[in-house]
Amino acid sequence: MKEKDTGDIYQESLALHEKYRGKIEIRPKVPVGTRHDLAMAYTPGVAEVCRAIHRDRDLAWRYTLKGNTVAIVSDGSAVLGLGNIGGYAAIPVMEGKALLFKKFAGIDAFPICFESYHTDFVDEVRNIAPVFGGINLEDIAAPKCFEVEEALQDIGIPVMHDDQHGTAITVLAALLNACRVTRKDFGDLRIVVSGAGAAGYAIVRLLGCIGYSPDVCQKVKDIIVCDTQGIIHRDRKGLYANKYKFILADETNHGGRTGVLADALEGSDVFIGVSAPGIVTGEMIRSMNDEPIVFAMANPVPEIMPDEAAAAGAAVVGTGRSDFKNQINNALAFPGVFRGALDARAVRINDDMKVAAAHALAGYVARPNREHVMPAVLDRKVVRTVAEAVRKAAVASGTARETG
Amino acid sequence: MKEKDTGDIYQESLALHEKYRGKIEIRPKVPVGTRHDLAMAYTPGVAEVCRAIHRDRDLAWRYTLKGNTVAIVSDGSAVLGLGNIGGYAAIPVMEGKALLFKKFAGIDAFPICFESYHTDFVDEVRNIAPVFGGINLEDIAAPKCFEVEEALQDIGIPVMHDDQHGTAITVLAALLNACRVTRKDFGDLRIVVSGAGAAGYAIVRLLGCIGYSPDVCQKVKDIIVCDTQGIIHRDRKGLYANKYKFILADETNHGGRTGVLADALEGSDVFIGVSAPGIVTGEMIRSMNDEPIVFAMANPVPEIMPDEAAAAGAAVVGTGRSDFKNQINNALAFPGVFRGALDARAVRINDDMKVAAAHALAGYVARPNREHVMPAVLDRKVVRTVAEAVRKAAVASGTARETG
Repeated sequence: MKEKDTGDIYQESLALHEKYRGKIEIRPKVPVGTRHDLAMAYTPGVAEVCRAIHRDRDLAWRYTLKGNTVAIVSDGSAVLGLGNIGGYAAIPVMEGKALLFKKFAGIDAFPICFESYHTDFVDEVRNIAPVFGGINLEDIAAPKCFEVEEALQDIGIPVMHDDQHGTAITVLAALLNACRVTRKDFGDLRIVVSGAGAAGYAIVRLLGCIGYSPDVCQKVKDIIVCDTQGIIHRDRKGLYANKYKFILADETNHGGRTGVLADALEGSDVFIGVSAPGIVTGEMIRSMNDEPIVFAMANPVPEIMPDEAAAAGAAVVGTGRSDFKNQINNALAFPGVFRGALDARAVRINDDMKVAAAHALAGYVARPNREHVMPAVLDRKVVRTVAEAVRKAAVASGTARETG
Repeated sequence: MKEKDTGDIYQESLALHEKYRGKIEIRPKVPVGTRHDLAMAYTPGVAEVCRAIHRDRDLAWRYTLKGNTVAIVSDGSAVLGLGNIGGYAAIPVMEGKALLFKKFAGIDAFPICFESYHTDFVDEVRNIAPVFGGINLEDIAAPKCFEVEEALQDIGIPVMHDDQHGTAITVLAALLNACRVTRKDFGDLRIVVSGAGAAGYAIVRLLGCIGYSPDVCQKVKDIIVCDTQGIIHRDRKGLYANKYKFILADETNHGGRTGVLADALEGSDVFIGVSAPGIVTGEMIRSMNDEPIVFAMANPVPEIMPDEAAAAGAAVVGTGRSDFKNQINNALAFPGVFRGALDARAVRINDDMKVAAAHALAGYVARPNREHVMPAVLDRKVVRTVAEAVRKAAVASGTARETG
C-alpha cells in the first residue's frame, strides 16, 4: 500500500467516524409500538420471565440476549500495530470487531474496554458474565493475555483471546493446505516461528508441541521459536522472567539450537512470522529446505515481501494482507468459532474445536494451489462451515451443553 | 388488572421471550458491504482514529459510540416486586429498559448485570466506563444503591439510580401540578412519605428536606417518613444500623411525631406511597386535611385503590399504573434526563437538572386538572421537552462539557 493511499484512508476513516459517532447501535428485535407491546417486553409481563430464570438460571439462554451475545473485552494494551494505547483509544477497534461479528456470524457483540493496563480485569469480566454467551479477548499484551485467558476458563462460557487462537487456527489451516500443495508431510515439518508474543505462543501450542492431545491432529515434531533476542532455548538467560517463554524453551527446539533467526531458518521447511517488518531476506529463504512455505504475517509490512520470497524460491507465500494472495487473517476463524461455540452452548473453546475449525477452513478450499491455500475473507459460507465443524467438535469433546 | 389477564400476559410474555431470545440486538450504523467499507470502519483506517483518541481521550465522544451509549447496571437485588433475584434473572428487565431508552430517547443502552449481590461492583463500573456516556443504575436494593451511586459520582459521566431519581422527579412533577389544581402552596405542604427505601429517600431529598439548594426550588418544610415500623423520628431505636434512615430521622419530622402511618397522615396534605399494597384506608384519607393529594404508587397493587381514595375525599389521586388516571411513572423522566445529560456532556446529574426535569414535566401539561396532572407516558414529545430543560440546567449549573 502506498503512503499516499494510507493517508487518504486515514482521513476518510476519521471523517466516517465523526459522521456516525459510533459504528454500532442497539436496536429492538421485538415490537415496541404499543402499550401492549411494552407490557409484554417490559412490565408487567417480564416479571414471569424473571421468575423463570430465578428458578433456573440456565433459562437465561432461552429467554434473553445471552445466547447470541459476545463481549469484546480489551484493555487496549496491544492494539493493532499501535501498542499500549489504553481502553479509550481501543474503542474504535472493538466497535469495528463488533461489525465483523455481526456481518459474518450474526452475533451481537458489544465492546467492554477497561481504562488501564494496570487493572487486573479478571474479576470484572467474571462479574459481568451473566448477559454474555461468550467472551472475545482482544488486543491485550502478552503475557497478561495468557494469564487473563487462563483465569477465565472456568466461568462456564467460552473465553477466547482472538489474537492468539484466531491467528493460530488460520495459520494451521493455511499450513495444512500448503502441505497438500507442496506434498510435504505435516508431521515431518521443521518449522520456525518468529515472534513469541500472543500469536506466536498460540501457534506453537496449536501446532502440537505444547500439551496437545495427539489423537486429534498429527503433531509437528520440530518447532523453533525466535524472538528479538534470537532462538529461544533452554540455556538462554532471563527466561524465568516470563513464564510463557520458559514454557516455549522447555517444549520447543528439542535439538537445542542457538543463534539468530537466520540460523534457525537454515534447513527448515516453514517460516511463520508474527513479528516485525522486513526481518527476513531472500538469502534466508534460500537457506531453507526445498519448496519452503513462508507465512510472513507482520502487518501492514510483512517480514518479507511476497515477491521477494517467491523470487527466493518460496513455494507458498502468505501474508495478513488482503492485497496479496493467500491472506491468512483471523477474520476467517473467530466468527465461525464463536458461532459454533454459541450454537453448542460450549462451556469453553478447547483445542479440539480449534483444530476442527482449522480443518474446516482448509477443507473449504476444494482444490488448493500455491496461490490459493485459504478461503476468501468475504466469503460468508466459510463461517457456516467452520461453525458447524466447531459445534460438532464441542459436542464430541464433551464441552457442549446443547448436544443437538 | 384481573388475575386471569395477568396470567395471560405472563404466558404471552414468556412466549415472546422464547421466540426472540433477546429483545435487543447490535446493528451496524456504518456501511459494511465491501472491502473498502471494512478498511474504513476497521483496519487499516481505524488506526488513525485510535491515534487521535490516544492523544486526546476526549475525542472518544466525537469518534465512538460513547456519546450516545448508556450502561444499564444492576445486580438484580431489588427487581420490580420480585426482590433479590440476582443478575441472571434481572437480564429481561434490563433488556426491556434498553428498549425504552431507544424508543423514547434514541439512546443505545446495554445491560450490565452482576452475578451476585455480594459483589461490590463500584470498581467494576468504574473500570468499564470508557465506552459509556452515562450509567443508569437499576433495581439495586437500598442501602447499597445509595452507596454505589455516591461512590460513582466522580467518574466523569452521569451516574443515576433511576429507581431513586426517576421516581422522585415524576413525583415532584405530579405534586407541582396537583398543587396548581388544588391551589395549595407547595412550601406549606405537610407531606407523608410511606417507604424509606430507594424511592422514598430520593423523593424526600428532592422535595427539599435534605441538602437541597434553596434557590432552585421552594423547599417543602414538613415531611414525615414512615417505614414498616412506623414514623421515623430521632429517638427511634435501631436507626444507626442504616445511615440513610438516620439521615431521614435527622432531616425530617421536625415536629418529632411518633406512631404509625395513620398517625402521620392525620392533618397532612399529601400522601406519597412507595411501599406496600393496601396499607392505606379510606378512614386514613378522611383524617387528612381538605383536598388531600394521594399518590399511591406501590405496584401493581397500590397502597389504596384510586376509587376508594376518591370516595374518601382525595382531590388528586395518582398511581404507577397505566390503567388509572394520573400515571406517575419514571419512564416519563429517565429518557429525557439521560438525553439531556448526554447532549450536554454533563459530568453528573445534579439536583438542578432533576428539578428542571420535574418542572418541564409539570409544565408540559398545559391545563392540569384533577384527572390529568401528568403527561402520557407514550407521548414522545415529552422526552424532547425534558431533555432540553435538563441540558440547559446542566449548562447553567456548570456540570456540562458542551455549552452549546
